Amino acid sequence: MADTSNPLHSWFLGPKGENEQLLKELLASALQAHVDWRRSYHPEDPSPIAAGEQRTAAAVRQSAELRTEFEALLQQLRGSVPIFHGRYNGHMVSEQTIAAQAAYFAAMLYNPNNVSREVAPVTTRLEEEVARQLAEMIGYDWASCWGHLTSGGTVANFEALWIARNVLYHPVAARLATRALGTDISVSLPDGTRESLSDLDLWQLLNIRPHASLDLWEKLWLAAPGPIIESTLKAHSLATLGYQDYSRQLAAEFGDELQAGVVLAAGTSHYSWAKIVAALGVGTNQLVFVPVNAECRMDPDALWDEIESLTRKRVPIMACVSTCGTTETGAVDDLRRIVEVRARAEWELGVTFHVHADACYGGYAASLTRKPDGSRHTASEVRKACGGTDWPTDQWVRSISALESVDSVSIDPHKLGYIPYPAGAFLLRDRRGRELVSTDPPYLAVATSSESPDQAVIGRFIFEGSKPGASVAAAWLSHKTIPLNSDGHGRIIASTMKAARELYALLGSFDFAPLRVIRLPEPDLNIVCFLLHHPSLVTLSSLNALNEMIYRELSPDAEMSAPYMITRTKLTSPACDQAIEPLLSLMGENGRAYRAAIAEGLTVLRSTVMNPFSGDANPDHFPGLIDAVRRVAVSFLGDPSDHVAHFARGKT
Amino acid sequence: MADTSNPLHSWFLGPKGENEQLLKELLASALQAHVDWRRSYHPEDPSPIAAGEQRTAAAVRQSAELRTEFEALLQQLRGSVPIFHGRYNGHMVSEQTIAAQAAYFAAMLYNPNNVSREVAPVTTRLEEEVARQLAEMIGYDWASCWGHLTSGGTVANFEALWIARNVLYHPVAARLATRALGTDISVSLPDGTRESLSDLDLWQLLNIRPHASLDLWEKLWLAAPGPIIESTLKAHSLATLGYQDYSRQLAAEFGDELQAGVVLAAGTSHYSWAKIVAALGVGTNQLVFVPVNAECRMDPDALWDEIESLTRKRVPIMACVSTCGTTETGAVDDLRRIVEVRARAEWELGVTFHVHADACYGGYAASLTRKPDGSRHTASEVRKACGGTDWPTDQWVRSISALESVDSVSIDPHKLGYIPYPAGAFLLRDRRGRELVSTDPPYLAVATSSESPDQAVIGRFIFEGSKPGASVAAAWLSHKTIPLNSDGHGRIIASTMKAARELYALLGSFDFAPLRVIRLPEPDLNIVCFLLHHPSLVTLSSLNALNEMIYRELSPDAEMSAPYMITRTKLTSPACDQAIEPLLSLMGENGRAYRAAIAEGLTVLRSTVMNPFSGDANPDHFPGLIDAVRRVAVSFLGDPSDHVAHFARGKT
Repeated sequence: MADTSNPLHSWFLGPKGENEQLLKELLASALQAHVDWRRSYHPEDPSPIAAGEQRTAAAVRQSAELRTEFEALLQQLRGSVPIFHGRYNGHMVSEQTIAAQAAYFAAMLYNPNNVSREVAPVTTRLEEEVARQLAEMIGYDWASCWGHLTSGGTVANFEALWIARNVLYHPVAARLATRALGTDISVSLPDGTRESLSDLDLWQLLNIRPHASLDLWEKLWLAAPGPIIESTLKAHSLATLGYQDYSRQLAAEFGDELQAGVVLAAGTSHYSWAKIVAALGVGTNQLVFVPVNAECRMDPDALWDEIESLTRKRVPIMACVSTCGTTETGAVDDLRRIVEVRARAEWELGVTFHVHADACYGGYAASLTRKPDGSRHTASEVRKACGGTDWPTDQWVRSISALESVDSVSIDPHKLGYIPYPAGAFLLRDRRGRELVSTDPPYLAVATSSESPDQAVIGRFIFEGSKPGASVAAAWLSHKTIPLNSDGHGRIIASTMKAARELYALLGSFDFAPLRVIRLPEPDLNIVCFLLHHPSLVTLSSLNALNEMIYRELSPDAEMSAPYMITRTKLTSPACDQAIEPLLSLMGENGRAYRAAIAEGLTVLRSTVMNPFSGDANPDHFPGLIDAVRRVAVSFLGDPSDHVAHFARGKT
Repeated sequence: MADTSNPLHSWFLGPKGENEQLLKELLASALQAHVDWRRSYHPEDPSPIAAGEQRTAAAVRQSAELRTEFEALLQQLRGSVPIFHGRYNGHMVSEQTIAAQAAYFAAMLYNPNNVSREVAPVTTRLEEEVARQLAEMIGYDWASCWGHLTSGGTVANFEALWIARNVLYHPVAARLATRALGTDISVSLPDGTRESLSDLDLWQLLNIRPHASLDLWEKLWLAAPGPIIESTLKAHSLATLGYQDYSRQLAAEFGDELQAGVVLAAGTSHYSWAKIVAALGVGTNQLVFVPVNAECRMDPDALWDEIESLTRKRVPIMACVSTCGTTETGAVDDLRRIVEVRARAEWELGVTFHVHADACYGGYAASLTRKPDGSRHTASEVRKACGGTDWPTDQWVRSISALESVDSVSIDPHKLGYIPYPAGAFLLRDRRGRELVSTDPPYLAVATSSESPDQAVIGRFIFEGSKPGASVAAAWLSHKTIPLNSDGHGRIIASTMKAARELYALLGSFDFAPLRVIRLPEPDLNIVCFLLHHPSLVTLSSLNALNEMIYRELSPDAEMSAPYMITRTKLTSPACDQAIEPLLSLMGENGRAYRAAIAEGLTVLRSTVMNPFSGDANPDHFPGLIDAVRRVAVSFLGDPSDHVAHFARGKT
């Protein structure tokens, strides 16, 4: 017969458990293999459980009690949100691959702890492979980069900034260390010239390229016995001194009061960045929001202006965070241009910084740019893989491909990798950076000469300690069977992006009368944002109340009675003004009133179309969702004041 | 028949998979329940998978490929470390409860994300219950405390210090905020007197009890409209300003250059504390190690001396970290005395600080102090529950019970809770502290009036973002069926502590001739540390090489050929001098030579006896382990120089 099957259909359990049999078989073989393994380990040892003990009244009662409580748990779990279903287009969560589910369970039975090879010889090796799979997908050179899995995007982003800060301040420590040792050393400046470290002023020391800062570290390492250099460098580092004494040391040394270093991020960057800068002691004041453009992407011109302005004020820049797939709208920054802006800053201003790509959501889109042999597709080949449309644009492909040129990248397998929680990943282009945050645990084995020194004690370099090898196995098997190229994960991404564009188009053509739909620009990935509007809503708070109400009515409740589920987010001013303005301009008279009140932000509805079956699941779902949105809105208009009060009270 | 069954025997899968049938049944019912649930959700929706599609050549090939790769994974997993077995007494990992394994799997199918109730209505509720179970076990009042699960101990400890720092500096922000608002407010000082906030100097502001600091926060909250207070407080907080500008603000305001705040921790505290203070910007220099006593517990007299000395230097103390079950030796600090030292510091010196108990390893020991009705056992009742011996001591019971009186506690369910990774927990005695680190995610639902406001958006208060509801379900079901009292987890703890003491006694009575065994003091929990010694080893490095060699030979290798597995750790000088000294004094002449070289540290062998079947599994195991240790040592002595070289090269 003609082979018309869709590969996506066998990768997931399916909305009706269509592939139940496959998962069931895999689970049974995992348990069998595990028990066989247990039995084959010193089979001569007697069992601690006496014959007949399992049939005593107490043992039988205990198992019965466990079964009862377990049934109660299963009953409770029926109240879960049906994220697996095409009717759910809310948060960034959906199906998990069967490969990931089965591998997670299989490895969990062995409970490996990936903090060290000593307790997890198998899954630490798999972790290297997963890191390599992801690194090669984005285009990092495995010979010089490093990566590992984290509990999620927050920790991955945290590690990026933690390392960036240490790399930024390292030349200062190096300068003080060389002086203490009576040596000097040359260093490459952003404009390409070389200078003696001792000739640089504080501003120059804080504007050394990450790679050059790490060259300095390596050179010093070779210049004197390791322990001496290490202790001298450490004695002058921020990690050792802490901010308070470090600032004092700089003031004494350079007669220059160091300005607080800042982190540049788009106005739509993830809320965790505020937590991260607060926790690191950087301070949320130092999180400088770069405005976004109409597409909700970081505006490269605004970025340049910000860099120029900071340079005039002699404010060092620790890092710039670009987002590949914002949590709010799925926008993909024009990363190529951001990297170009940094290059220009290096040449024209002598200023540089670490560029981190927060690709927690969108990172897997890079699989679309990869052929099965690992080489890159051209933009037109990518479009062909997406079904021969005029999309994605050359610029989109360039943005995604530019991930290879930034200093670090975070990608969450538990988002578009369809792996169960917890699975984040952190990738560092120049692996030497991890040395600046390393710690030596006293009781974990250090590498011996016959092992790869890189991963033997992963715990030395990561922020977390104990961590599940099971999630590594899940990502590994999933990537192995659904490869990170256009035949594997690329198909899933392409299919959900296509579905999202269908929803977007349908929203545009649907008649919402007496309301109107206002759509954000076409989605960069698979998140569709829009809002409903009616001329009678003369205040921004009533407009927001309408859309909040739609969101609440189309949210999970105890009975999962909403026919469809979506979420919402808030575009804030002034960071998102360029994105808000075109929306307001479509709302005529009202738009002007809204503009005056924009400090309260604009609520937009948000629909994450990441269900792998969205592309072909049920042709009624998108019309059904749109109709449900319209019906809630119409009922709201029936008595908006009542609803506003209702909303203000909460849904009681 | 007489019911002589051991409850521990049905709680775990067993070394030969004795309880395989029970686990298999639970897994099957979990999958069945999940698939039924999927099928019952909008059964009228058609399946996206066409009839016959699963039997097409491509679909069959795809599943076959997954089966093949899965088999290869299972084959690889056979190289895992047999941590489930009584022959493994290495790191802090062992069996997992069947309840936890089954519940993890069951909940993972629904993949709830406990960042928010909106995506995880069931498991966020269970997370509250788990937090409450743990809080009540240690003795916190659920009405005023807070808790949640983390990816592990590092993040839990990080959150403790993150909150402690914000609470410490809060009175300074409050003082600046009240001035900006033109108000004043009274505050309670450590010696019990009350003063106007505006009358306090910087030193006094940095020595307000955590509870009083939070009272201040609450009073201010009531004194003026929330948003005004919030923004004013925030504007003056360290989290907003960052260390650099905060220090400048203090210098300008108080004409006083603020000394860097320090964290007090025992010399044997977990290595993650160095990472945490480095990451927070506190600096590792500010991690002040308090010496331990002969039992490897923090020395309360040394703590007092340190506090006095810091007070003379006007160095503020951010927190004191006490350990309940050190990773290295399992030592349980005399927490009651540490709390008394703080009380004395408050009265005599006017100095106070946050006390955090790092009970990541030992926290579950508190279950031994609980009767089934939740009330406390007396010390003699605890001893009765432990088998009627003269152990544990009154002091041990007081130390464990004192967890109720500290400001925060971290406990890892994935250690002595026998839950699969990842499962840490953070408990905060005064829940208001979390407000000082909160962030509002723009797209997660905030609490409505009908919900408990505490956990609806757990993501506001925690460091991490997305996190697995599955690990919560695992802890919940395990605690439900193996309760946190002397009938449940207390039995496991008691049984492993008893086994550890048996190993300890056996080590003491065994004839190691021509070597001698030197044991550390009797274990506080279930970790037994010792080292072998021979008079011919005249240098400390040769002594350490002997014990490193024993460790290496009794470590997992590719074939798992070691008959028994243990680990090792290093006691460092000067932090552990009081613990090292009695050991050296047992080594006569050599001891003096070792003392001179003690800067390199003393390697000790470390055996974590946490296998739930250790108590009664196999009477040959401990003699076998001891004999294996002796045999490796004897072979080392055959040609120690060769082995030293061998060790220095690594095991090639």
